[in-house]
Amino acid sequence: MSSASIFVWETLGTAILILMGAGVVANVVLKDTLGSGGGWLLINFGWGFAVFAGASIAAPSGAHLNPAVTLGLAVAGKTEWAQVPVYFAAQLLGAFLGAVLAWLTYKLQFDAHDDPAGTRGIFCTAPTVPGRGWNVLTEVIGTFVLVAWVLLSPAAKAAADGVPQLGNSALGYAGVAFVVIGIGNSLGGPTGYAINPARDLGPRIAYAILPIRGKGSAEWGYSWVPVVGPLLGAALAGLLYLALPV
Amino acid sequence: MSSASIFVWETLGTAILILMGAGVVANVVLKDTLGSGGGWLLINFGWGFAVFAGASIAAPSGAHLNPAVTLGLAVAGKTEWAQVPVYFAAQLLGAFLGAVLAWLTYKLQFDAHDDPAGTRGIFCTAPTVPGRGWNVLTEVIGTFVLVAWVLLSPAAKAAADGVPQLGNSALGYAGVAFVVIGIGNSLGGPTGYAINPARDLGPRIAYAILPIRGKGSAEWGYSWVPVVGPLLGAALAGLLYLALPV
Amino acid sequence: MSSASIFVWETLGTAILILMGAGVVANVVLKDTLGSGGGWLLINFGWGFAVFAGASIAAPSGAHLNPAVTLGLAVAGKTEWAQVPVYFAAQLLGAFLGAVLAWLTYKLQFDAHDDPAGTRGIFCTAPTVPGRGWNVLTEVIGTFVLVAWVLLSPAAKAAADGVPQLGNSALGYAGVAFVVIGIGNSLGGPTGYAINPARDLGPRIAYAILPIRGKGSAEWGYSWVPVVGPLLGAALAGLLYLALPV
Amino acid sequence: MSSASIFVWETLGTAILILMGAGVVANVVLKDTLGSGGGWLLINFGWGFAVFAGASIAAPSGAHLNPAVTLGLAVAGKTEWAQVPVYFAAQLLGAFLGAVLAWLTYKLQFDAHDDPAGTRGIFCTAPTVPGRGWNVLTEVIGTFVLVAWVLLSPAAKAAADGVPQLGNSALGYAGVAFVVIGIGNSLGGPTGYAINPARDLGPRIAYAILPIRGKGSAEWGYSWVPVVGPLLGAALAGLLYLALPV
Repeated sequence: MSSASIFVWETLGTAILILMGAGVVANVVLKDTLGSGGGWLLINFGWGFAVFAGASIAAPSGAHLNPAVTLGLAVAGKTEWAQVPVYFAAQLLGAFLGAVLAWLTYKLQFDAHDDPAGTRGIFCTAPTVPGRGWNVLTEVIGTFVLVAWVLLSPAAKAAADGVPQLGNSALGYAGVAFVVIGIGNSLGGPTGYAINPARDLGPRIAYAILPIRGKGSAEWGYSWVPVVGPLLGAALAGLLYLALPV
Repeated sequence: MSSASIFVWETLGTAILILMGAGVVANVVLKDTLGSGGGWLLINFGWGFAVFAGASIAAPSGAHLNPAVTLGLAVAGKTEWAQVPVYFAAQLLGAFLGAVLAWLTYKLQFDAHDDPAGTRGIFCTAPTVPGRGWNVLTEVIGTFVLVAWVLLSPAAKAAADGVPQLGNSALGYAGVAFVVIGIGNSLGGPTGYAINPARDLGPRIAYAILPIRGKGSAEWGYSWVPVVGPLLGAALAGLLYLALPV
Repeated sequence: MSSASIFVWETLGTAILILMGAGVVANVVLKDTLGSGGGWLLINFGWGFAVFAGASIAAPSGAHLNPAVTLGLAVAGKTEWAQVPVYFAAQLLGAFLGAVLAWLTYKLQFDAHDDPAGTRGIFCTAPTVPGRGWNVLTEVIGTFVLVAWVLLSPAAKAAADGVPQLGNSALGYAGVAFVVIGIGNSLGGPTGYAINPARDLGPRIAYAILPIRGKGSAEWGYSWVPVVGPLLGAALAGLLYLALPV
Repeated sequence: MSSASIFVWETLGTAILILMGAGVVANVVLKDTLGSGGGWLLINFGWGFAVFAGASIAAPSGAHLNPAVTLGLAVAGKTEWAQVPVYFAAQLLGAFLGAVLAWLTYKLQFDAHDDPAGTRGIFCTAPTVPGRGWNVLTEVIGTFVLVAWVLLSPAAKAAADGVPQLGNSALGYAGVAFVVIGIGNSLGGPTGYAINPARDLGPRIAYAILPIRGKGSAEWGYSWVPVVGPLLGAALAGLLYLALPV
């Protein structure tokens, strides 16, 4: 597939992922919404079905939507290293655009919100208990599970190898959605499960740039954690893949 | 397929969609029910599995159940323009009938409800923060995601092209159900995600006509928003489909 | 298939359905459990995955597990009338046995419960607002949706016609589980969605017979509603099936 | 498959199962997490999707992940008795490693927790109402449902017989995930549904060994119940399988 096509599909798919992912957090965090205070399971189903929608649409480019997935596939020898920068750029752009769309979707609620400094969590992640080393480890473990599944599950292995996977199944990407919901349920408690550098960095840039009413700091001091942790976890999963008797 | 058959299947499928969709809101909003106060995730799973049930049954006509889906498919060249009015009419009739059935299902609870003026939300949508332009935009974005998925997901593309999609899979329409749950979770917070003109207009007409105890205004002043927004979003998705290197 | 085999599989499958279905209500209603007060969505996922487990196991006999399903299939010409009594007897016996097992599973919690007269709802259904005619209608509508889906969904039609449905799919019965969850979410609010005469009558008999600590009345006066309503709804769905241009 | 390969895949899969399973309980039980107090349905979806992730990855070894499943398959003649000790050892090691990883993921939250003696429930199960005989029976019944499904569902039978099951389906293990969620919803209320000796014993050993801040007793007096109950239930399911006209 041409780099231009990869760029188009990854941008579109990641934009839909982040539009819906940031959207569900906005729905739960902001006050004047129908999902206000809806809880962690709602947030996790929100992110999981965001992955399902975005990945289904980005199927032509392999639906990475995540630099950690791209890196893991490259380490495992399943994506060409020359294409990695194209994936990365598209994913970051798509994540930025998706965050802008989420803000527009909830514009009236942002304007009416009574805790404007608390809206950064709609865009990017933060630890519940700060501690850089442990925060990185949590992101490493969560992303390891995701990328290990992508590389090792029967469906993902077949897809990564180019074997058509039930061709046109409506549910081809429900598996990865279930895994993401599971990671959120189980491993997202300490750091909000970025498990995707673009998912955190793109919306953080959007938060810094957009004229959001009464916004606070973008907390750049933490921003490297949800980039480095996921990339480390993905590289570990790629190395595991190479070591296992697949 | 003949226009008569399209009409029958779309009416039946949309009636089941709205019976179950209005039903879950009744279950949560009304006081004397087992799901009273059940929350946003319950409502979204309610609408999602309503789509699953209605779409599975309406498979012979393509299971549009939504004028926005029909319009998006027509713009994308996948439904004949001559059939569009048949789909629209059946969808509106089905939505009306479904709302009547939902009211009958909860008749005793409507009669016992202590806030009768608050039951309009069981039938049709309303914004949490009024602002016509932004409300339209929210409906445009939510519907764009739905119709983009219908046009671009691997399964939907195959189905729209007439390729049999796993033939008789029990779960062929679970994909679109997951997307609808996701849109509700993520993008439904500001306006209640009509994302379907018939879903809003048919039950609004039913609310205006039915002898519901102590009912209030049908709020016709807002009624164009959940018609125009979804149609715009669907047209945009159809144009995107034509522009992409599918 | 021999009547003896039908009897074995339907008894086993219905027992698992009711063990898990009564079990989730026990988990939510009783005080000394981990799911106490867990809410309506938990109950509906409980019943839905109870259907999934029981139906998967009872696949050899067609996994009716419900006299209403059997009746609907018979009206539609898909089950022989001579086999109907075998299905009915097995379903009633299985439902009784499942209720006994659910009671044994929660025996310590039943003994410790502080509202012993309130445990009948673990076994059988009751209306939130009494009104026999409307209660029947609610059960008719809910069961109509279930049996219409069984008869008309692509998968169900193929299965009922004897066409192998993805052969050995792990998820062949997830579709009917999603529909049952949807009916619970949307149409179960007024009467607790029996939608299955054996599901209500078998456990009601168990409640009347078992030495449950401090138990109250089995409310036989209501017991005909969750038998007659579902059978009527199923017959209507069967007639619809015959009338439609399938 | 060689014993070494079985050992590798079962260890890896069980480690991921317990990492995510203990993780979701940590997320709900500990105070400084995003899922704190999230409820029983969140816990059950957590365990269910933990099974989905771990089983998908461990597909090459059959994805037992549970000595009760291995025993049931052996009784039913579907796993060689000589391989049983390999499965058991790997499952126990994997469960131990998964519990260590879950603790590391939530290390800062464990250190900040205000009820340190209450964290044992993150690792292993305990009854809500003590009563050894009834507790065993509850575990027998829950495990019986799991192993009966594994042996008798269409997909599981095909998989156990070595018939390729939709080859590379992304969702091949979603069925067992739904069953586990269902068992948690319905039968997990009294004892926390160990239904897997390794799931309970491995993390209990981890709890006894790890330097968890302020930890209490590992409650070894109860530890035989979630070992004996599941093995009994699995053996019963295996015998049922042999007796049925499969």
